[in-house]
Amino acid sequence: MTKIKKALAATAEAVEAELDRLLAQDGAPERRVVEAMRYATLGGGKRVRPFLVMESAGLFGVATGSAVRVAAALEMVHCYSLVHDDLPAMDDDDLRRGRPTVHRRYDEATAILAGDALLTSAFAVLSNVKTHREPGVRCELVEALSQAAGAHGMVGGQMIDLTAAQLDLDMGGVTRLQRLKTGRLIDFGCQAGAILGRSDTQRREALRGYSHDLGLAFQMIDDILDVEGNPDLLGKAVAKDEGQGKATFVSLMGVDRARAQAERLADQAIDHLGSFDERADGLRALARFVVERDH
Amino acid sequence: MTKIKKALAATAEAVEAELDRLLAQDGAPERRVVEAMRYATLGGGKRVRPFLVMESAGLFGVATGSAVRVAAALEMVHCYSLVHDDLPAMDDDDLRRGRPTVHRRYDEATAILAGDALLTSAFAVLSNVKTHREPGVRCELVEALSQAAGAHGMVGGQMIDLTAAQLDLDMGGVTRLQRLKTGRLIDFGCQAGAILGRSDTQRREALRGYSHDLGLAFQMIDDILDVEGNPDLLGKAVAKDEGQGKATFVSLMGVDRARAQAERLADQAIDHLGSFDERADGLRALARFVVERDH
Repeated sequence: MTKIKKALAATAEAVEAELDRLLAQDGAPERRVVEAMRYATLGGGKRVRPFLVMESAGLFGVATGSAVRVAAALEMVHCYSLVHDDLPAMDDDDLRRGRPTVHRRYDEATAILAGDALLTSAFAVLSNVKTHREPGVRCELVEALSQAAGAHGMVGGQMIDLTAAQLDLDMGGVTRLQRLKTGRLIDFGCQAGAILGRSDTQRREALRGYSHDLGLAFQMIDDILDVEGNPDLLGKAVAKDEGQGKATFVSLMGVDRARAQAERLADQAIDHLGSFDERADGLRALARFVVERDH
Repeated sequence: MTKIKKALAATAEAVEAELDRLLAQDGAPERRVVEAMRYATLGGGKRVRPFLVMESAGLFGVATGSAVRVAAALEMVHCYSLVHDDLPAMDDDDLRRGRPTVHRRYDEATAILAGDALLTSAFAVLSNVKTHREPGVRCELVEALSQAAGAHGMVGGQMIDLTAAQLDLDMGGVTRLQRLKTGRLIDFGCQAGAILGRSDTQRREALRGYSHDLGLAFQMIDDILDVEGNPDLLGKAVAKDEGQGKATFVSLMGVDRARAQAERLADQAIDHLGSFDERADGLRALARFVVERDH
């Protein structure tokens, strides 16, 4: 296993343990929703977003116990969005991470509620004193995540995506869609470390540049994998965008140009980290990994 | 119009104006979700929860500008829960406040996203510096609302409600269900003023006692109106619980006993306010209003 895969696996393990603690099961009559929340978040995923939180926090010497809570909160929001996006009224997917989606394993109502509760729980985690002793830092985390996830962030991106087939998006339109739908949470992952570490503006901007380019590269490869990927490796259905007549980076640029552009963006992302020392090597390696992955 | 109806109308107007500002429309491609959020929150509702925030804040001399933001955030969470509860996979309702429900007016996907974005937006509002200059107060509001709305709060209550027909709930079971499903947000409304006003423990406990009894009385009357109410006045379908074989306060106690119990609870709620001066008269009048209303 390469070094970056080992690092991702270590983060995945730490965030998994934290999610397991935060979403503790009990015997309450509402336990079905907690079960579904656990099903949606535990046991799978590359945990790229938590990795960004842990690595960006590492740049500023933030305590791991703080960072892992923020990583878990971000992953809750990411997983809630997958649960809702998979619903019949949205993308109508049966498989996620190689397993039945939450509404297939449970039912639609439980999936809607589990998503709602995961989103809510993320803010409970961030606002709790265990996340950081300074309330100003916790408030900034709450505000940044809610901005990233809301109507002019991730949810807005999903809204555009649902109408994308009608909108006939050009390159600018697809870029904005993806900036909202996947880019904003990736940004938050990188900003989280800067917020926890009370970073100066210059290093915040460097991280913003990195996450901007990383997010786009990530999405370009996602679009390529939707066309060329192995559904067994991916653990989900492929060729969905083309079937729905949606404009993607691949439909607009072709596979080869999209791949070349993703590689350029990964280089550019790494360039933004120039002022950081070797503690940014994890983030550098991630940018490479994101464009080289096959699932 | 009685004094309490006038007071409720004044709060409704103030919170409506605040929601209109907070959910400003623009020309962005994701504007459909903002439209649906506005449709879900503007133009209707008794605004009981915002009233609790404004009145409890008034007990501690909190600035109206702070309180109305918290009132709007709480109403966003209440309205998101209505949007999701009305979905076909949940209660499958076509009418709400006399108008088509959000998924009937737009579509299911938009309704899911609008609910998600309203919930997210509530936390953006609470965490923003405009809500209170002290981040410790804002954090406490975020944490209290997320606890009230989450898997062991409102969402948990809805989860139990969906399985209620199978659970064969007794009086204790129905009471717990309703404490979670409607009681917790009502509690938050009363606690919000105490948090904003940095109340001492004794007055917090008094407000907790008030909201506990008020919430149960409110729900008992709701159950009575579901059996005896006029659907035109209520703006929604009635007799849904009975049709679904769900245990309610009315099915367990009968209409007369449920009404007598609601009146006792209203008296008890008012008794909890004994240590407050005439600034608590709005809360006292609300307790009366809640058990006397016909919709």
